Amino acid sequence: MAKIRPLEDRVVIQQIEAEEKTAGGIVLPDTAKEKPQRGRVISVGPGKLLDSGERAPIGVVEGDEVLFGKYSGTDIKVDGEEIKILRETDILAKIVK
Amino acid sequence: MAKIRPLEDRVVIQQIEAEEKTAGGIVLPDTAKEKPQRGRVISVGPGKLLDSGERAPIGVVEGDEVLFGKYSGTDIKVDGEEIKILRETDILAKIVK
Amino acid sequence: MAKIRPLEDRVVIQQIEAEEKTAGGIVLPDTAKEKPQRGRVISVGPGKLLDSGERAPIGVVEGDEVLFGKYSGTDIKVDGEEIKILRETDILAKIVK
Amino acid sequence: MAKIRPLEDRVVIQQIEAEEKTAGGIVLPDTAKEKPQRGRVISVGPGKLLDSGERAPIGVVEGDEVLFGKYSGTDIKVDGEEIKILRETDILAKIVK
Amino acid sequence: MAKIRPLEDRVVIQQIEAEEKTAGGIVLPDTAKEKPQRGRVISVGPGKLLDSGERAPIGVVEGDEVLFGKYSGTDIKVDGEEIKILRETDILAKIVK
Amino acid sequence: MAKIRPLEDRVVIQQIEAEEKTAGGIVLPDTAKEKPQRGRVISVGPGKLLDSGERAPIGVVEGDEVLFGKYSGTDIKVDGEEIKILRETDILAKIVK
Amino acid sequence: MAKIRPLEDRVVIQQIEAEEKTAGGIVLPDTAKEKPQRGRVISVGPGKLLDSGERAPIGVVEGDEVLFGKYSGTDIKVDGEEIKILRETDILAKIVK
Repeated sequence: MAKIRPLEDRVVIQQIEAEEKTAGGIVLPDTAKEKPQRGRVISVGPGKLLDSGERAPIGVVEGDEVLFGKYSGTDIKVDGEEIKILRETDILAKIVK
Repeated sequence: MAKIRPLEDRVVIQQIEAEEKTAGGIVLPDTAKEKPQRGRVISVGPGKLLDSGERAPIGVVEGDEVLFGKYSGTDIKVDGEEIKILRETDILAKIVK
Repeated sequence: MAKIRPLEDRVVIQQIEAEEKTAGGIVLPDTAKEKPQRGRVISVGPGKLLDSGERAPIGVVEGDEVLFGKYSGTDIKVDGEEIKILRETDILAKIVK
Repeated sequence: MAKIRPLEDRVVIQQIEAEEKTAGGIVLPDTAKEKPQRGRVISVGPGKLLDSGERAPIGVVEGDEVLFGKYSGTDIKVDGEEIKILRETDILAKIVK
Repeated sequence: MAKIRPLEDRVVIQQIEAEEKTAGGIVLPDTAKEKPQRGRVISVGPGKLLDSGERAPIGVVEGDEVLFGKYSGTDIKVDGEEIKILRETDILAKIVK
Repeated sequence: MAKIRPLEDRVVIQQIEAEEKTAGGIVLPDTAKEKPQRGRVISVGPGKLLDSGERAPIGVVEGDEVLFGKYSGTDIKVDGEEIKILRETDILAKIVK
Repeated sequence: MAKIRPLEDRVVIQQIEAEEKTAGGIVLPDTAKEKPQRGRVISVGPGKLLDSGERAPIGVVEGDEVLFGKYSGTDIKVDGEEIKILRETDILAKIVK
């Protein structure tokens, strides 16, 4: 698959189907209208440029399982697979086992 | 239960049923349309990143009983239990006995 | 009554009935649609966190009688008594005798 | 009359009837829908708190005759007399004779 | 006429009738719905207070002929003459001959 | 023609008819609803005042051919000729041959 | 073709038809209502002016293949070819092979 390199503090997420149970046993309702969602981080941007010229660190890394609001970010199809590009600030939490 | 680690200044809250009386004897009306709500803090984020590179301290800790507006934050179901992820700034007050 | 400790620059107010005259003789109209209101401060937050790490001082103290807009803040019922939690910036003025 | 002490950069204004001519001879139309208005300053707040910890000076003093937009600020009745509490930034100009 | 002293970066403008030609020969359409307008500066505020405690200089002086948007600022009638109080930032340009 | 001196970071533009081809051969559609437009810079303001007291440099000079959104800025008629006053930030690009 | 030099942090993009497969094999749906899009960078602005007087670096260079939201930026026709001018912050990601 082509590599998607997000800019700034953006993160590329591979969404996990809501029906499927996560390793942590979390089940998210499929019928809720504005339901949060979960996914796995597949690519992380360099971070927002600070006034100092440095980049702000990003709080997630590749492989992290994360939660986010359903309508956060932009969904695009890459090689037939739906990915989501969102800003780090739209990620609510990490799920740790 | 899977551990939910909120990012930035977010806090994970386990909601307390409005019908149930708190230890402090607070009863919140169930019928009010935009009623505030109470809950117990179960996880606290690292705090907002400051320009200095440090994290701003968060004014609540695990176990705190807190009040917040009904529509604050994002509700998700984890292991069949409804939790709420909100920003510290959406917490109105702590209840101390 | 359980103690309510507001966060940041929030203030807990016990509302004074509009029909009742204040010590200062102020009478506020009960019929005005968006009428300002008065109350007595019963708890004061630590103040907003400044970039310096200090807290901004709050211009009211417990016991102060204050004026605020009718729709400012969040109303909650505690032990059967209606209180209001608002930010200091929503307090218009103090009434001194 | 009870003393009203405004917070921050707020100013308490006693409105001058639009029909009445000011000392400076200014007459403001009573029929204009969103007409500006004039009044006399009766109390001035301490000024906005600056990052330095000092207060920003306020450009009007008690007794000043001022102009403001009709819908600026909050109107309340004190001892049967209508006063207005507004922020300094809502005062358009002073009238000097 | 009473002297109007604007606060902050506000400027008092005496409007020039759109039908009348300016010295520079500029004619502004009277029928345009959101037409810009011209006027002469009759009073200038002290300038916006900077964090340094100084005032930002204002780019127009008494007597300047200026252009502004039709709905900028607040119109008031003083001694039967319509004036306009607007912020410097609402002045688009000066007309020089 | 009277000289129009824009304030702050504003720029005065003489619009080039969309039907007419530019030297660079660019043709802009006349029928597009929210079409971008091109023009020639005829006057440039002093630049925005910085906190340091200096002026931010402006990225265009008199004579530059520029592109901007159709609804950017304010259109006024001067000596029978339509000009546009807009802020530098509303200029999308310069056209160079 | 005339050279388009974008100002500030703007970037000129030549859009790649959604039906066409990119070198990386990415296919974007043509029917999605608010579909993201891809294109190739053909010109990059000097970067946003910082308070320090320097320019913030831009994270893309000429030739980069990028993704952006469908309604980002301004579309104009140059020499019969549709280009898009958008700000760097509207670019979601780069595609690398």
